[in-house]
Amino acid sequence: MKQVNKVVLAYSGGLDTSVIAKWLEETYRCEVVTFTADLGQGEEVEPARAKAEALGIKEIFIEDLREEFTRDYVFPMFRANTIYEGEYLLGTSIARPLIAKRLVEIANETGADAISHGATGKGNDQVRFELGAYALKPGIQVIAPWREWDLNSRESLLAYCEKHNIVVEKKKGKSPYSMDANLLHISYEGGILEDPWAEAEEDMWRWSVSPEQAPDQPTYIELSYQKGDIVAIDDQPMTPAAVLAYLNKVGGDNGIGRLDIVENRYVGMKSRGCYETPGGTIMLKAHRAIESITLDREVAHLKDELMPRYAKLIYNGYWWSPEREMLQQMIDRSQLPVNGKVRLKLYKGNVTVVGRQSDNSLFDENIATFEDDAGAYDQADAAGFIKLNALRLKIAANKGRNLL
Amino acid sequence: MKQVNKVVLAYSGGLDTSVIAKWLEETYRCEVVTFTADLGQGEEVEPARAKAEALGIKEIFIEDLREEFTRDYVFPMFRANTIYEGEYLLGTSIARPLIAKRLVEIANETGADAISHGATGKGNDQVRFELGAYALKPGIQVIAPWREWDLNSRESLLAYCEKHNIVVEKKKGKSPYSMDANLLHISYEGGILEDPWAEAEEDMWRWSVSPEQAPDQPTYIELSYQKGDIVAIDDQPMTPAAVLAYLNKVGGDNGIGRLDIVENRYVGMKSRGCYETPGGTIMLKAHRAIESITLDREVAHLKDELMPRYAKLIYNGYWWSPEREMLQQMIDRSQLPVNGKVRLKLYKGNVTVVGRQSDNSLFDENIATFEDDAGAYDQADAAGFIKLNALRLKIAANKGRNLL
Amino acid sequence: MKQVNKVVLAYSGGLDTSVIAKWLEETYRCEVVTFTADLGQGEEVEPARAKAEALGIKEIFIEDLREEFTRDYVFPMFRANTIYEGEYLLGTSIARPLIAKRLVEIANETGADAISHGATGKGNDQVRFELGAYALKPGIQVIAPWREWDLNSRESLLAYCEKHNIVVEKKKGKSPYSMDANLLHISYEGGILEDPWAEAEEDMWRWSVSPEQAPDQPTYIELSYQKGDIVAIDDQPMTPAAVLAYLNKVGGDNGIGRLDIVENRYVGMKSRGCYETPGGTIMLKAHRAIESITLDREVAHLKDELMPRYAKLIYNGYWWSPEREMLQQMIDRSQLPVNGKVRLKLYKGNVTVVGRQSDNSLFDENIATFEDDAGAYDQADAAGFIKLNALRLKIAANKGRNLL
Amino acid sequence: MKQVNKVVLAYSGGLDTSVIAKWLEETYRCEVVTFTADLGQGEEVEPARAKAEALGIKEIFIEDLREEFTRDYVFPMFRANTIYEGEYLLGTSIARPLIAKRLVEIANETGADAISHGATGKGNDQVRFELGAYALKPGIQVIAPWREWDLNSRESLLAYCEKHNIVVEKKKGKSPYSMDANLLHISYEGGILEDPWAEAEEDMWRWSVSPEQAPDQPTYIELSYQKGDIVAIDDQPMTPAAVLAYLNKVGGDNGIGRLDIVENRYVGMKSRGCYETPGGTIMLKAHRAIESITLDREVAHLKDELMPRYAKLIYNGYWWSPEREMLQQMIDRSQLPVNGKVRLKLYKGNVTVVGRQSDNSLFDENIATFEDDAGAYDQADAAGFIKLNALRLKIAANKGRNLL
Repeated sequence: MKQVNKVVLAYSGGLDTSVIAKWLEETYRCEVVTFTADLGQGEEVEPARAKAEALGIKEIFIEDLREEFTRDYVFPMFRANTIYEGEYLLGTSIARPLIAKRLVEIANETGADAISHGATGKGNDQVRFELGAYALKPGIQVIAPWREWDLNSRESLLAYCEKHNIVVEKKKGKSPYSMDANLLHISYEGGILEDPWAEAEEDMWRWSVSPEQAPDQPTYIELSYQKGDIVAIDDQPMTPAAVLAYLNKVGGDNGIGRLDIVENRYVGMKSRGCYETPGGTIMLKAHRAIESITLDREVAHLKDELMPRYAKLIYNGYWWSPEREMLQQMIDRSQLPVNGKVRLKLYKGNVTVVGRQSDNSLFDENIATFEDDAGAYDQADAAGFIKLNALRLKIAANKGRNLL
Repeated sequence: MKQVNKVVLAYSGGLDTSVIAKWLEETYRCEVVTFTADLGQGEEVEPARAKAEALGIKEIFIEDLREEFTRDYVFPMFRANTIYEGEYLLGTSIARPLIAKRLVEIANETGADAISHGATGKGNDQVRFELGAYALKPGIQVIAPWREWDLNSRESLLAYCEKHNIVVEKKKGKSPYSMDANLLHISYEGGILEDPWAEAEEDMWRWSVSPEQAPDQPTYIELSYQKGDIVAIDDQPMTPAAVLAYLNKVGGDNGIGRLDIVENRYVGMKSRGCYETPGGTIMLKAHRAIESITLDREVAHLKDELMPRYAKLIYNGYWWSPEREMLQQMIDRSQLPVNGKVRLKLYKGNVTVVGRQSDNSLFDENIATFEDDAGAYDQADAAGFIKLNALRLKIAANKGRNLL
Repeated sequence: MKQVNKVVLAYSGGLDTSVIAKWLEETYRCEVVTFTADLGQGEEVEPARAKAEALGIKEIFIEDLREEFTRDYVFPMFRANTIYEGEYLLGTSIARPLIAKRLVEIANETGADAISHGATGKGNDQVRFELGAYALKPGIQVIAPWREWDLNSRESLLAYCEKHNIVVEKKKGKSPYSMDANLLHISYEGGILEDPWAEAEEDMWRWSVSPEQAPDQPTYIELSYQKGDIVAIDDQPMTPAAVLAYLNKVGGDNGIGRLDIVENRYVGMKSRGCYETPGGTIMLKAHRAIESITLDREVAHLKDELMPRYAKLIYNGYWWSPEREMLQQMIDRSQLPVNGKVRLKLYKGNVTVVGRQSDNSLFDENIATFEDDAGAYDQADAAGFIKLNALRLKIAANKGRNLL
Repeated sequence: MKQVNKVVLAYSGGLDTSVIAKWLEETYRCEVVTFTADLGQGEEVEPARAKAEALGIKEIFIEDLREEFTRDYVFPMFRANTIYEGEYLLGTSIARPLIAKRLVEIANETGADAISHGATGKGNDQVRFELGAYALKPGIQVIAPWREWDLNSRESLLAYCEKHNIVVEKKKGKSPYSMDANLLHISYEGGILEDPWAEAEEDMWRWSVSPEQAPDQPTYIELSYQKGDIVAIDDQPMTPAAVLAYLNKVGGDNGIGRLDIVENRYVGMKSRGCYETPGGTIMLKAHRAIESITLDREVAHLKDELMPRYAKLIYNGYWWSPEREMLQQMIDRSQLPVNGKVRLKLYKGNVTVVGRQSDNSLFDENIATFEDDAGAYDQADAAGFIKLNALRLKIAANKGRNLL
């Protein structure tokens, strides 16, 4: 077994990571530092302090990372209209690199030689945490208890708590789902969702009302963009985290952002997941709209062709990699002219773009018009355009190639 | 001026193409053959016969192409989850190759040496018609009156009619929009839409009710797939055209499929368009769902990365090209295992996947489960997987490369 | 330790795999089946029989796979102009899938439940063998002794031989390099090559003379293609293996096909390798030449853009995968018109194309000519072509976008 | 006919552009400004002054652009290992954007409202000049005499000269080829090359000796790189243009850089071209070598996959476009660690890399070694790596998918 002196643990305050804290100490005879972050998951993080103290932890880090998370991770990702496998907005994936970075930084600050997390050996999160940690601090040790120990059921965890005097909160209505939440989304896995034919139950969803329960009147909002990021809503300037929180609220209230998919994990299996991403769903739609008038066609197409690869990098845990940074640089540069406003109608699950405007607009009414364009466009040019584009096809047909 | 003996005209029976028929005859001193197709635009095509006869046309082709259109063009395109610029389902684009093909075939049958169409010199449709025609019959002549004549306003067209005794139908409530329709969609351009900030008026939309007007009860449907195509709805076998018609009906009734975008035309300008694609919107969502359990991950990702290019080919008019056929071959092959059922909930503009099942499913509950998997998956493998994936990142960091 | 009854070993007859045969028997108490293939490595395979018998092996498979290797693996790969990282012709990579397939097939025939190979835990070959085996027979066990045992030096291997009465051939002039050979190439790694600044020694190279030692007179050859494959040389029909053997001979005689690179392994490290690929070097150049007159431009460009991904699949060991098969299907289809002849000049390391012709040529002298083309091409078309291609750039510039 | 007041002409001083100068004046009744650039074509540019004066030109621009050309166009292009259709180093293509830029800048300086060039209507150069001009100055007029006039033979040009008293130099040994030269290459088209089966004649080539005529002793050189660009040869610091001139000399002397291909033009036809690119051929090989030890694997692969698209942009004339700039940004960023030295052997047409070293090397001898690595790499990790990469393949096989 590897020698560990001090380990920084990503600590939620819940049952699993409380057991892990104790187990690390016991198994590796090492000091444990806890790190608890508010990423907008919607639960107080401060209570984690008392729990950590009760476990005998001496170095306790509790941080509000909501602004950093939104500004440096969520917003850059949305500049690319990122979507994994045509559906998933990467709500879990995008939070992991920030946690990995903070674990490493805290290890550096506290002189720890290892980090630990509560992700299982079957999922993507272990990969995202660990690739990030190795990329940022190559000598770090990583302890993933779920891959090592034999406490593989809730019963054995509870038994471990009893044995080690770990206080377990009795939660009423313990969810049957494995959930993850941050300011971008909340996810559900497991339980009846393991049958892809079974419809999710209405009471599973926590962040949004159903379209059926949403108001009968639409809500209109206007989003203001600078360099591809939302900087104001209805002309009220807001910080990134405030923007996302606001859109989550108004989106969730209008039944927006539910998703039910089967996705392909990096570790090789398919899994069913349900997601609520109210704000993200609005942002994706609106960002495409502001780009539609401000981006050059070929720039937009290049972004579209590279997007699946960029999404895969984030999904697979390669946020901290030179190839992701290389793509990011290109994406960010493309956003310089992405300024202006988008007007949206939100109604019972629907996000509809109803207007877009920009001082950087490339939409040219004089040319696009069906009316007389006063010579702005010479229709005769189209004949030559078509003929030369057709030339290779004509030559091929003349030489006997047959497309039918 | 080029010498033309006989020209096949894509003839709708409306004002524009009636003028074109006469103008061709007068300008080129040639015979005119008319071709009118039912592609599901929702208007009778048979009345075009009397109109053509009134114009003195001797060879009149009127055809119902709805099944061919859906089976050989729409369905193959949906196998790729095709979507242009993240939004547009290519309803207009996909109808053009079939019309181009029939124009050429009729030219071959009737001994015509030219074809003609009523598309303007500013749009994409001229390109789609003409690239197709040149690719299939390289010696064909193409006459595009809107690029040649000086009848550039409705007034001059009406004056031309009067002069040549062309009967003009008085339509009540002439739409202010330029529209195009077929079994896949109806589109609107021009009028107030030329201002991208202006919201489309409710009474513009023709195929769908608004989400507000849709029923308060959801509709559930089950789609059955074989090789990526829908072959039955709610266990009722249907032809391709019947599938699409049914989905248009149920989709439109539930307020599904409206879209309002600014798109980039192949000829170089941006244009605003509104679209109703009820059936197509449902098909895209459902096809992704059936693929999600039946396609290998890397096959799915390869398809996703190539899709924007495939969409661009269709949008730009290259259906009849060797590169489109090459991609199609690959796409079609990927669909062999795409069999099974998808269950959908339709409600006020929302299409929600609530279940998917397949005999070809690659979803493995035994491996994916959060419960005990009886050794189906060895979590310890993940450590090696992550370490080797991290190796290049660790080496780089050890050599001083800094990602922060 | 896993339970194994019978294991099929990829057996070369050399020291390492002889030790492995004994070690497997001893360690797993299982029967060992040996499989030795002639892939054109240039050494007799029949002597492996006596060696295997001396080890007490009862089921011995010795096969000449040169035709299958060239026809079903090498030739399909060259249809894509495949080259890894701009330089490497994948000589080692392409042999592994065939070996994996035969190991699995022999396991099926002999009722074995495991396979084994002599590849180390640092290289790509283990990945290629094992991915192939798992893909073709998912329940198979794989034993990779180099990842398991502690015989990690030549000394310990020799000691093991002495202890177990394994006869070791005394080779004169044992190479300091780790080598691999088949009909496509021979490779060298290790030794002084581990310093990327050190020049390879002249006496390392085995298959080719140096350009300096090659004849002072050039050799001209003509290659005949059908569907992208060479079917005759200088009008002499030949089988695939005969083609490759012939080109290796004439290429090696003319100093062609040496390569010295640093490449990126799938397992995450960089490694230095030297390769001799005389025939492959000629084939790549010639195949591009025959494609240059027979392929449509966009088909060729699509192939070029997908090639690095296809090369990576083969390099990384994913020959037996649905995504490789999907790409192969597309590549193969593109080759239908790739028929004709290429004339080459071989001289002191240089392969120069000096002529190409085809009944399927798309080269049109009438259009391409600098002389009068009798109206085959209307130069005025170019103005419209350029103007519409420029339109988006002009609009952007007019709107104040500045490219300088 | 369009109204033109003053036109800037890309003027070589030769017959064609002298006729054009006069023809412009006569046809458009406009002033003509001449622009003659030294791009390293190997001919004096100063004599163009007297010729222009003899034509009555008042504003004459003659400029040495060799450094700007190499530094801002050639070197950035080589950072991407750019190669069109697997063979062509884009020698002609890369010079056009600079000429387009200077034409526009001179138009701005002199108050001209038009530019003109001597490229034909069949080639790529017209596209490159004009796309650049439109992108940089959207209101500019472009006059392409070869698309407009009827002087379509050498005879009619000579007759025009006689009529307008234009002095024609009698060149001995007028080449039968259409040629273009700059510091990167010289090209040949037309004449007997219009038959793709005909071998180019030895006396066509001007910049290089044949491999046969090259020295019997190899030449070794060392190239020093900073951020992907060569900054010194054999430790002698040099400017970009000096680097390229030096490599042309040493390359040409050693028979390096001849190429004979059929390529696909943007205007739709195939054409045969022969090229001499001695320095460029060396630079491509060497740049790949320095990248091989300094670039991360995934960065290198991303560059490789995007390269064909980047090459196509340059070939097609889109240097001055936002998408080229977006790609360039990404490429340039990747080059930050591309520092170090490459050692090359040049011999009778061959460029062989014999060593590469860098302070930024990612080559890790400790890990790559075949010898004992003291635990730097744990071979056991490979088992997990392979197993998880195989998982989706195993599941598919278990579910009955068959790859054979």
